[in-house]
Amino acid sequence: MSFTKLDELGRKLEALEHAQAMLGVDEAVQMPSGGGEKRAEAMATLAGMYHEMAAAPHIAELIADAESEALDAMQQAALRELRRTYTNLTCLSSDFVRKQVAARIRSEQLWRELRPTGNWKDFLPAFEGVIATLRKEARLRSDALNLAPYDAMIEQYDPGSRTSEISPVFAELKSFLKNFIPRAIEAQQKKPPAKTFNAPFPVEKQKALGQAIMKALGFDFEHGRLDVSHHPFCGGVPTDVRMTTRYNENEFLSALMGIVHETGHGLYEQGLPKQWAHWPLGRARGMAMHESQSLFVEKQIARNPAFWEWAMPIVSEHLGADAIEGWNLTDILTHVHKIKPGLIRVDADEATYPLHVILRYELEQDLVTGKLAPRDVPEAWDAKMKDYIGLSTIDNPKDGPMQDVHWPSGAIGYFPSYTLGALMAAQQWAAIEKATPSIAHDMRRGDFSSLNKWRHDNIWSKASTLSTPELLQQATGEPLNVKYFTEHLQRRYLP
Amino acid sequence: MSFTKLDELGRKLEALEHAQAMLGVDEAVQMPSGGGEKRAEAMATLAGMYHEMAAAPHIAELIADAESEALDAMQQAALRELRRTYTNLTCLSSDFVRKQVAARIRSEQLWRELRPTGNWKDFLPAFEGVIATLRKEARLRSDALNLAPYDAMIEQYDPGSRTSEISPVFAELKSFLKNFIPRAIEAQQKKPPAKTFNAPFPVEKQKALGQAIMKALGFDFEHGRLDVSHHPFCGGVPTDVRMTTRYNENEFLSALMGIVHETGHGLYEQGLPKQWAHWPLGRARGMAMHESQSLFVEKQIARNPAFWEWAMPIVSEHLGADAIEGWNLTDILTHVHKIKPGLIRVDADEATYPLHVILRYELEQDLVTGKLAPRDVPEAWDAKMKDYIGLSTIDNPKDGPMQDVHWPSGAIGYFPSYTLGALMAAQQWAAIEKATPSIAHDMRRGDFSSLNKWRHDNIWSKASTLSTPELLQQATGEPLNVKYFTEHLQRRYLP
Repeated sequence: MSFTKLDELGRKLEALEHAQAMLGVDEAVQMPSGGGEKRAEAMATLAGMYHEMAAAPHIAELIADAESEALDAMQQAALRELRRTYTNLTCLSSDFVRKQVAARIRSEQLWRELRPTGNWKDFLPAFEGVIATLRKEARLRSDALNLAPYDAMIEQYDPGSRTSEISPVFAELKSFLKNFIPRAIEAQQKKPPAKTFNAPFPVEKQKALGQAIMKALGFDFEHGRLDVSHHPFCGGVPTDVRMTTRYNENEFLSALMGIVHETGHGLYEQGLPKQWAHWPLGRARGMAMHESQSLFVEKQIARNPAFWEWAMPIVSEHLGADAIEGWNLTDILTHVHKIKPGLIRVDADEATYPLHVILRYELEQDLVTGKLAPRDVPEAWDAKMKDYIGLSTIDNPKDGPMQDVHWPSGAIGYFPSYTLGALMAAQQWAAIEKATPSIAHDMRRGDFSSLNKWRHDNIWSKASTLSTPELLQQATGEPLNVKYFTEHLQRRYLP
Repeated sequence: MSFTKLDELGRKLEALEHAQAMLGVDEAVQMPSGGGEKRAEAMATLAGMYHEMAAAPHIAELIADAESEALDAMQQAALRELRRTYTNLTCLSSDFVRKQVAARIRSEQLWRELRPTGNWKDFLPAFEGVIATLRKEARLRSDALNLAPYDAMIEQYDPGSRTSEISPVFAELKSFLKNFIPRAIEAQQKKPPAKTFNAPFPVEKQKALGQAIMKALGFDFEHGRLDVSHHPFCGGVPTDVRMTTRYNENEFLSALMGIVHETGHGLYEQGLPKQWAHWPLGRARGMAMHESQSLFVEKQIARNPAFWEWAMPIVSEHLGADAIEGWNLTDILTHVHKIKPGLIRVDADEATYPLHVILRYELEQDLVTGKLAPRDVPEAWDAKMKDYIGLSTIDNPKDGPMQDVHWPSGAIGYFPSYTLGALMAAQQWAAIEKATPSIAHDMRRGDFSSLNKWRHDNIWSKASTLSTPELLQQATGEPLNVKYFTEHLQRRYLP
């Protein structure tokens, strides 16, 4: 049976993915620097073997044959998702991919070299090369998927999401935030000043605190662990989720908030259906839904006052009685609810973050259509930054268009996922709150089981059986609706 | 060119080996228990892909074609070694290998279960199954390699070594040791009693001590690291050598001696020629030569009085001034030169260890020929233990034939490597001492560079260009000669 042959192929591909995932984790967590060159060579070779196996022409025939076999509903869904990923994988010629990879590597290396000094001028030629191949990629994908070029790029990161749905939502959100942020900052200024931390907080103690919070949040340490890396991530495989963070001994919140964010990713991975792990069907549903799970834990749970009523004694237990001695709930919330407009997306608070994303979303559409030339990006960026956030980057490309790795590495269509994730997290929260009025009460006791059960039943266990919009609709009973996010912000930040 | 095609194939195989090696390290060092099932599945799948690729029939044609191409001497050597490994890999049918793997897995699992209680009776049927397939394997290899069956098995672990050379050497060694050990013990009894350690020695301090000694011995931490695992090993790849140990807070010598032993393996791996890493030619020359490198560091260097003159202050520096306060050189040597006959091979000292190996060497030859039936192993073992070491295991199969994993997992022909390694280490030491009379002086200053240079030039850089006997002959100027080991023992243990 062709379906059986595809199932066997899936196990081989899964083994290669397993190796690549774990080699990537090891590289970030354990590998000595001198191992890097050979590791890169091995990973590139494994990636080539994977591509050769996953994009083999006879797979098209196997899929077509399997489609006429007697399959149950899940097998049919598995086949549909395989066809979708196979089409996405094979719609670029290997000759094109080789050239594109070369352009991306050149651009990303140059970016790493030139970013610290913000040398946009010398970076521009490589960036132009990346955008040129990216436009071609978008056209090729557009033809293969029968989608508009930018939609075809979004499809790589967030299957089923389209600009026709995103743009009105983002427009509404932008107009809300431009009005909301000044009011929130005004309200913030009336509050008592933030207390300072009773540092230092030794790494080992912060780690034990993080692990205790992870455990309470439902992370399964039989199937995962927490390590240290320069850039925090959540990697590994669903049966062995490898999370990392980094510690700052002067305060404990940045590591802890990083840990709870990655825990959200980790819970999603651990909650995926095991029996489909070797099919695309068994994977998490794209970047936006993944981000909705991390932001659900980081923003909806771990910045909720009820969470901190439970968590403050846990902090004292692990970091010592004097760590936040004499702090009341307001004191901790002052730290975790701080709004501060800035230039850097990754440092942004939950209120200003979407403006960073919308700026990029608007610019990258124009980059794909050709309306915006790469050389004009700094001016376009600056104009939007001044308009949306009130800050200029015209003399500071390092903290402007050179701040993120995404564009230099050729990832366009990825940015919307972050804010779509934030909106979906708020919408999921509202749906749970409606179904389970006791969640604030539960959180005060450190009980996150009903929050996890809802997400397990409605998100995690569904894996890739539905597109992102379908999954959200089915889980929450309605399509993406910005009001849950804006109401969340108003509740949290306005008096 | 066929040689070029084989070179490309080698890079793919190397990437798969890299993945398997690192997944193995991660499993022992980092992996949470729940990750084990999927890891085993992934590693089995990768091993299958490797075998399919490495044993593909068209490789025989490529090798034959390449043999008529214009190649330099190293390329010719690479091709010869590839042919040798390809013949060894393909001389068993995949149907046979599948059955054998099943028998081995069943036997090894049963051994793990039954060993703690020494339940030989229930283990026997599985062991009989392993030995039956092993006899068939030896015959198949014998036919393919044109070697006697047991020699064909040794060839798997120690290419080029033959019983015709080993047996007279082991016979001489056995007769020497039966006379030497009682005399050495008598001399030992006249020495002052061993001082006790000023424990505890915290793990972090022991680790720093171990790393300092490793570094001085020449281990390159840019291309390797030291971790903790239940069973110490040296794994990874030559550009990224992963060593492990385990610590006992009550004393520091077992971890430190384990570390220096594995450092010997690690130095060999780090010293292999990088440009041939993706060919069998570039690998270390078999288990016996590998063991000669670990035993060289552990026995020849790190139990040498000159080493301890340098190392004792290093110990105090890392473990504290009171760790071995008031100890003189004799006090430390009492610990590292202790001879104590016992039942367990892995716990044996350097004088009694070869008798454990010779016992196994003699028995496993008879197991392969059929002269010894599996059910008669406990009696045969006991008879030799009483004869060679003066201890009985007849009522204690747990500490008799059930003590090692080798036979239960179907590894026969491996044991001689341990003692061949010890003999070759002594022979290498003698050759270096002759060429560089200053080595004792150098060691007293913590300078191991001349020891490493000789081994780099004569052993490590040669990789698999020669068979084990050829390599030893070329390095030391003569074939395997037991006198260097026996003279070493006499010098160290007799007054």
